[in-house]
Amino acid sequence: MTVVGHLINGEIINAAGESGRSQDVFNPSTGEVSKQVALADQATVSNAIAAAEAAFPAWRDTPPLKRARVMFRFKQLLEENAETICKMIGEEHGKISHDAMGELQRGIENVEYACGAPELLKGEHNRNVGPGIDSWSEFQPLGVVAGITPFNFPAMVPMWMFPLAIACGNTFVLKPSERDPSSTLYIAQLLHEAGLPKGVLNVVNGDKEAVDVLLTDRRVKAVSFVGSTPIAEYIYATANANGKRCQALGGAKNHAIIMPDADMDNAVNQLLGAAFGSSGERCMALSVAVAVGQQAGDDLVAKLQEAMKPLKVGAFNNSENDFGPVITQVHQEKVVGHISSAEADGATVVVDGRQPDVEGHPNGFYVGATLIDNVKPDMVSYKAEIFGPVLQVIRVNTMEEAMQLINDHEYGNGTCIFTRDGEAARYFSDYIEVGMVGINIPLPVPVAYHSFGGWKRSLFGDLHAYGPDGVRFYTKRKTITQRWPSSNVREGVNFSFPS
Amino acid sequence: MTVVGHLINGEIINAAGESGRSQDVFNPSTGEVSKQVALADQATVSNAIAAAEAAFPAWRDTPPLKRARVMFRFKQLLEENAETICKMIGEEHGKISHDAMGELQRGIENVEYACGAPELLKGEHNRNVGPGIDSWSEFQPLGVVAGITPFNFPAMVPMWMFPLAIACGNTFVLKPSERDPSSTLYIAQLLHEAGLPKGVLNVVNGDKEAVDVLLTDRRVKAVSFVGSTPIAEYIYATANANGKRCQALGGAKNHAIIMPDADMDNAVNQLLGAAFGSSGERCMALSVAVAVGQQAGDDLVAKLQEAMKPLKVGAFNNSENDFGPVITQVHQEKVVGHISSAEADGATVVVDGRQPDVEGHPNGFYVGATLIDNVKPDMVSYKAEIFGPVLQVIRVNTMEEAMQLINDHEYGNGTCIFTRDGEAARYFSDYIEVGMVGINIPLPVPVAYHSFGGWKRSLFGDLHAYGPDGVRFYTKRKTITQRWPSSNVREGVNFSFPS
Amino acid sequence: MTVVGHLINGEIINAAGESGRSQDVFNPSTGEVSKQVALADQATVSNAIAAAEAAFPAWRDTPPLKRARVMFRFKQLLEENAETICKMIGEEHGKISHDAMGELQRGIENVEYACGAPELLKGEHNRNVGPGIDSWSEFQPLGVVAGITPFNFPAMVPMWMFPLAIACGNTFVLKPSERDPSSTLYIAQLLHEAGLPKGVLNVVNGDKEAVDVLLTDRRVKAVSFVGSTPIAEYIYATANANGKRCQALGGAKNHAIIMPDADMDNAVNQLLGAAFGSSGERCMALSVAVAVGQQAGDDLVAKLQEAMKPLKVGAFNNSENDFGPVITQVHQEKVVGHISSAEADGATVVVDGRQPDVEGHPNGFYVGATLIDNVKPDMVSYKAEIFGPVLQVIRVNTMEEAMQLINDHEYGNGTCIFTRDGEAARYFSDYIEVGMVGINIPLPVPVAYHSFGGWKRSLFGDLHAYGPDGVRFYTKRKTITQRWPSSNVREGVNFSFPS
Amino acid sequence: MTVVGHLINGEIINAAGESGRSQDVFNPSTGEVSKQVALADQATVSNAIAAAEAAFPAWRDTPPLKRARVMFRFKQLLEENAETICKMIGEEHGKISHDAMGELQRGIENVEYACGAPELLKGEHNRNVGPGIDSWSEFQPLGVVAGITPFNFPAMVPMWMFPLAIACGNTFVLKPSERDPSSTLYIAQLLHEAGLPKGVLNVVNGDKEAVDVLLTDRRVKAVSFVGSTPIAEYIYATANANGKRCQALGGAKNHAIIMPDADMDNAVNQLLGAAFGSSGERCMALSVAVAVGQQAGDDLVAKLQEAMKPLKVGAFNNSENDFGPVITQVHQEKVVGHISSAEADGATVVVDGRQPDVEGHPNGFYVGATLIDNVKPDMVSYKAEIFGPVLQVIRVNTMEEAMQLINDHEYGNGTCIFTRDGEAARYFSDYIEVGMVGINIPLPVPVAYHSFGGWKRSLFGDLHAYGPDGVRFYTKRKTITQRWPSSNVREGVNFSFPS
Repeated sequence: MTVVGHLINGEIINAAGESGRSQDVFNPSTGEVSKQVALADQATVSNAIAAAEAAFPAWRDTPPLKRARVMFRFKQLLEENAETICKMIGEEHGKISHDAMGELQRGIENVEYACGAPELLKGEHNRNVGPGIDSWSEFQPLGVVAGITPFNFPAMVPMWMFPLAIACGNTFVLKPSERDPSSTLYIAQLLHEAGLPKGVLNVVNGDKEAVDVLLTDRRVKAVSFVGSTPIAEYIYATANANGKRCQALGGAKNHAIIMPDADMDNAVNQLLGAAFGSSGERCMALSVAVAVGQQAGDDLVAKLQEAMKPLKVGAFNNSENDFGPVITQVHQEKVVGHISSAEADGATVVVDGRQPDVEGHPNGFYVGATLIDNVKPDMVSYKAEIFGPVLQVIRVNTMEEAMQLINDHEYGNGTCIFTRDGEAARYFSDYIEVGMVGINIPLPVPVAYHSFGGWKRSLFGDLHAYGPDGVRFYTKRKTITQRWPSSNVREGVNFSFPS
Repeated sequence: MTVVGHLINGEIINAAGESGRSQDVFNPSTGEVSKQVALADQATVSNAIAAAEAAFPAWRDTPPLKRARVMFRFKQLLEENAETICKMIGEEHGKISHDAMGELQRGIENVEYACGAPELLKGEHNRNVGPGIDSWSEFQPLGVVAGITPFNFPAMVPMWMFPLAIACGNTFVLKPSERDPSSTLYIAQLLHEAGLPKGVLNVVNGDKEAVDVLLTDRRVKAVSFVGSTPIAEYIYATANANGKRCQALGGAKNHAIIMPDADMDNAVNQLLGAAFGSSGERCMALSVAVAVGQQAGDDLVAKLQEAMKPLKVGAFNNSENDFGPVITQVHQEKVVGHISSAEADGATVVVDGRQPDVEGHPNGFYVGATLIDNVKPDMVSYKAEIFGPVLQVIRVNTMEEAMQLINDHEYGNGTCIFTRDGEAARYFSDYIEVGMVGINIPLPVPVAYHSFGGWKRSLFGDLHAYGPDGVRFYTKRKTITQRWPSSNVREGVNFSFPS
Repeated sequence: MTVVGHLINGEIINAAGESGRSQDVFNPSTGEVSKQVALADQATVSNAIAAAEAAFPAWRDTPPLKRARVMFRFKQLLEENAETICKMIGEEHGKISHDAMGELQRGIENVEYACGAPELLKGEHNRNVGPGIDSWSEFQPLGVVAGITPFNFPAMVPMWMFPLAIACGNTFVLKPSERDPSSTLYIAQLLHEAGLPKGVLNVVNGDKEAVDVLLTDRRVKAVSFVGSTPIAEYIYATANANGKRCQALGGAKNHAIIMPDADMDNAVNQLLGAAFGSSGERCMALSVAVAVGQQAGDDLVAKLQEAMKPLKVGAFNNSENDFGPVITQVHQEKVVGHISSAEADGATVVVDGRQPDVEGHPNGFYVGATLIDNVKPDMVSYKAEIFGPVLQVIRVNTMEEAMQLINDHEYGNGTCIFTRDGEAARYFSDYIEVGMVGINIPLPVPVAYHSFGGWKRSLFGDLHAYGPDGVRFYTKRKTITQRWPSSNVREGVNFSFPS
Repeated sequence: MTVVGHLINGEIINAAGESGRSQDVFNPSTGEVSKQVALADQATVSNAIAAAEAAFPAWRDTPPLKRARVMFRFKQLLEENAETICKMIGEEHGKISHDAMGELQRGIENVEYACGAPELLKGEHNRNVGPGIDSWSEFQPLGVVAGITPFNFPAMVPMWMFPLAIACGNTFVLKPSERDPSSTLYIAQLLHEAGLPKGVLNVVNGDKEAVDVLLTDRRVKAVSFVGSTPIAEYIYATANANGKRCQALGGAKNHAIIMPDADMDNAVNQLLGAAFGSSGERCMALSVAVAVGQQAGDDLVAKLQEAMKPLKVGAFNNSENDFGPVITQVHQEKVVGHISSAEADGATVVVDGRQPDVEGHPNGFYVGATLIDNVKPDMVSYKAEIFGPVLQVIRVNTMEEAMQLINDHEYGNGTCIFTRDGEAARYFSDYIEVGMVGINIPLPVPVAYHSFGGWKRSLFGDLHAYGPDGVRFYTKRKTITQRWPSSNVREGVNFSFPS
């Protein structure tokens, strides 16, 4: 059976599983084990860090324009090999090809942004901060930085991190999810094919043992993390206590407010993709719809119920499916459990996906699209991040009530309002305590030239991921102040060296 | 005896020392106790936080231009009351009036920068991030933020923080040093006189009890700290573990490299102020001179010895003095101990300030300007931050050696090179592992429109203090993505509501 | 009778009218001549330029922070002397004190922006544009620059120009309107009181003779102009042909679209001030209301008619008046002529201000607030800029028709839409061919930290006035590329000069 | 014989020379006519403008990210077809392949910069410019813009213009030089292959007849020009008088100051390429060396004389040649005439290239590398832009004298100083009246993410070419100010439309 190894100093190692621990990789569409993934021990991670450290001096001295050109070629290779990448994603994650392509495209956008490194690294220069004194800032790379990424976007989330970090002059150790490691590793190889010097990007697969080396090794200067909130908190506290800078992105519970004046057909159409796309396994998935007013609520539920009928859950390799399985059997059971708990708590399961019929794949980890009405704020299913294809509807009487719900929730990642009203939209975007806000946009993921980040317990750190904040996160500011005293040297006929 | 109280919700409280603990405030020039300072208990700090929290909603909604105008008036009041402020500083800190005036001026520059809030808070706007979709970023205030500041700049360091934080829309709780609290409190009162609403800035004097409330209270969203490295580390770890953003600035050991081609008279002249000004109690004090080559070292020491002769240490209120006492008797003894340890370790005490003769002030906490030659990297006096009027000289053979010394040191706050050579300056500024670099500038404190911050163990956090990084630190990014679906409403003759 | 002279090299000259031509200055509220203004001949203007040229080298070398501090003091003096300034404006221009205060405030905002000069002048710095090569930009002042400003904002429009130009390091020759010269001159004197060195700002009163010197003298590097379109065109072509950079702002015809869903009471209320404030003598005056749909048009006209009843036209010194006279008798007759021509062309004069009754001031240049309905695009009154208190209503069936009207008009200065609809607002702001767009804001004058400028024949030049574009206009870009070859000098033990 | 036609609306027309005027295209290496180029008449240019105008609405609505992606593909195609392009350049211009490759590379860098369009087009957004009022700026494309480019960089200079203009959303009409039209046309075709919609870029070959249409047609909104100063002046005045924005880059006379402390071998080595590369037919060619001090002058001339010995002039297709012929026989004679006039005026022709021996190409337009010493400022050869492989040496006694020479010259394009001295470099870069300054960089052409532009009579306009200024030039600023009045609509239970 194939073993997915590590990529250290430009070489694949452990691919034969010749040593150490390993773990099964499943095909969630069939429920079968398809590969093994090597789990790095401390020494392996340390080697990866050493490779990154050794590659740093030459890479930080490579002009940003040349670093950017590696990214230009990388983009091209990603596009040329998109189909291969998406198939890898599908096999191990379960998402349908069109969805995988969307993920990849979002990743490529971050590569495109990294192509602008020379522009992005501009410092600020002032002549005459005092008489004859100039001052300017430079944004220098940190050295070795690490990324720890989740299963749900094996291509995109790593590309939120390493292209920009590397374009800024850092070297990188990536620990992707061990659940779907193949596409990530393949992408890293493409970057080498694009001309990246050995050791600048290293990939280690692993679990907590590997993570803890990255969090404590003094050679690692910064850690970017995306995952669940409890882990994010652990990562943040541990990395900081070890003298690193850290940004740790955690969980979410993203609400959409449906105003009475919303174009309901449009809202329903948008919600379908936002709630059920990628089986809801997105930190920006829209999992709660808050309907303002009785009429809006009734309309919304009726139209959603109707619109959900043709939705198809199934295997990744049939592009007619709308979404695929969830990542593991354990997770499947957890999602189903949340639906049942909502029901037990008094909510109405309008569309029930607990027992989907997926022909030919009896052991796949499937949950069908589920709609739950009359959810209340004190239900467990409302408080938790379900991370499955489940859309819950809460009904309120006013926009203020709807906003209060959102502002009271532990998380503050994304949110959205559906309305035609300019004033409602402005009020909402101003006062809502959420980092990423959509106006008639259900998945307001910022484009690559803005930055991604939630508020409250959805992000630990002060800088958001990728975009302008990413540049600041992956560089340290150096401020130079310069005066050249004259001493009457320049003014003389004999400018300098008497012979 | 006067008791320096707190300023909470626009009112001075505890000024009569009516309750709670208090502590002596000394006049270091005479060694006598001149005042008492109240030490806030938990409830007092909690009240200050409550006042700040209550003031936040209205202040965050006040347009930045109006917030800036309070700063315009504040600047004016600071200038009009400069003499009063400097006298307060002198009495409790010991620094001479010209030095206090320099400190105040640097503080005012941060107020001037904060006057630009409308410009500084600009977000980035993009039309058509997708078809008909716009996106932009807003930088919203955090809420209640806290500052904890050291004794050595009772006016300036607080003004690195609260003017910008407040101009960005936050409300503030400041815990200044309990050693010299009067000028800080007076300045805070001036800001109210300038029109600041009650509760927007609150000042609590105190010790660890007060600090710990600021670090753990969930209502405080961010903490800025300046002090020593061990405390900075504690502050950083604790604040982060409590879900706050934090920037913690610690200690320093700032080296100047004296190149053989330096204008030696200029270098010596610059070093005097940089090493002995404010008795060396500055985190940017130049405390180590690294001479490259035998000749440069001999010249440097000879010229320094000569130049130090007229230097006068004495009481704060005689403006002919060059510098004043250190802050406490304990600290005086510590500085003297470092000089003696260097001597014991084999260094040469060229100019000895251990027993300065300050007429009329036998009990003042004085240490005279001290020059120590032949210091080695393994001496305790080299490793520690002495924070006194002591300049140590290390001799090396090459610029590379000099740079290695600096890069190997625990701290990386400021550094400087004296040279005429463009190439040496560029090489130095590029490769030195220090955050603030001077070329022929011995105290390369960034101007207020750049940002202040060291590298290595001189700063914990990813954003530097004040300037552009300060704006980013005191705001949270919100990214809005907006689409207005047409639905053929606009296009119709009957644009909207049929009656 | 008082003669208003010039301010050259810090001295008032010609105040006694000792030589040369002069011209009457009227009090439009009474129709009487109140002063004389000196008209500069060529030699006088040349002297002003010479003073500015002489002052340039020292001023361009003054650090931006110090230049900014003159502006900080200037702001303070403007505020302290606001009443005096507004009285001067009122006497010569005719605007009521509250309106003059608004003008002054807008001028002060530009001074506040100029206080940020150190931030605004930041260049872009790149380390390693090639191996060991750095590059950065500096924005250096141009030298002597000139401003030519109109009668309608004798305080504000000059302050769009000289504070920023001067803060950027230029020296300035201002030729304000000869109709109301006193406040402008007084303001210039305040700037000197604030600490401006002699010669940095010079004011010459005059007419075409003075203007032509400024346009052709090779020592003048740039010209900013605000006035009517035919003159703007002449200024632009002449200045450019003489090798200067030039921005010339001309006329306007600003339309508001009233959508059927607009809050009509709010719209009417806003329109009153926008149409009649300052007697409509503003390049941003809202002079055409385009009502979409029969109902909206009928409501609009009815409500306007009602709301205009209490409007009072009268002398500048009665603060209960809503607006004052127009600037001259000739202009009064021109405005009345436009009303009559509209009537003759078939439009309906709903409220007629042609013969206002202003008690006690029979000879003042008054026109009352006038509302004309059923205006058509081919009427002369529609095509021309009336510059009086006349609001014309056009009725259309659709928003597209309304936008087409605006896009077809010669001018493209400001425009506005009244609606609640986010989609309509976005469509409007995207496709309308106008430089300054308001959404429910009838006078969308950009704040001082944005830039002012129309499109089409409302502005000649590529950079708008004040704000970021103003900084770019008043500076020239210098790009420095730097390499320091090593030549093994730094690397040696004997770094440099063997003795 | 091949006829080079036009590219209009995605189609090559007139390639057969079926109509209209045409002109010979020479191969300067042989002196023979190799092709014909069609010369567009007024109707043809008008058609090109019409095509561009028709393509504009869809292109301006194409999201910047999608426009940028065309540029990503364009870059790739340029790299893949580099050899073809360089051969075309060589055949018609005469430059050697390595030089053509350098030109092409510089052009590609501008395409890379244009790939950052989404980042570059960001406007500035402010929440709460007043209570509840927001304001932001958008940078919208102008419409149809035109470029008129010179023979000396048929690939690079057009790519200074159209990639950025098009990425900003404009459509373009390019009139390249009729002397070497093939590579330009081919590049335009590659851009179409990259996915550019028809009509967005149009190329018309032609002469003054074509130019005058571009300058006067009201549909053209802006003109970028690079050429000689007299033509630049004509272009600027004419375009401006026709209501267009214009930037017109003219001639140059670039001086290098050789300081006594310069690394002379390095300086000589750098000067060779800067003076003789591309036969000196560059507006950034270094044509005057100013030696400070007798010794520096003597050394410089001696070392240059020696270093010039191996320089080879010859045909474009032999890569061992250092540079090729000049563009025409007329120009060859002009260059030779300048050398002879210098000699006649008393200068010393140290190395004489007037009669180069180029084997096998007796009729090519060759001038050999020429060094002239003892040139004086009043000689015609000093005042004029020779645009040939001629380096003139002027000797002065002090750096001040050297700088005065430069500042007194009509042109102010580029300049350079060779020194090790930080102070001299800073003084030079601060006070020299030249737009592009090199410190030990003889050809200080700004990189693509800065902007290109000279001072004095080297550039007419206020914005430089390409880079940040290019973005500003190719866009018009629109400022939107927005308020959404509440009217208690949002606050109600019944948010909106009672049915």
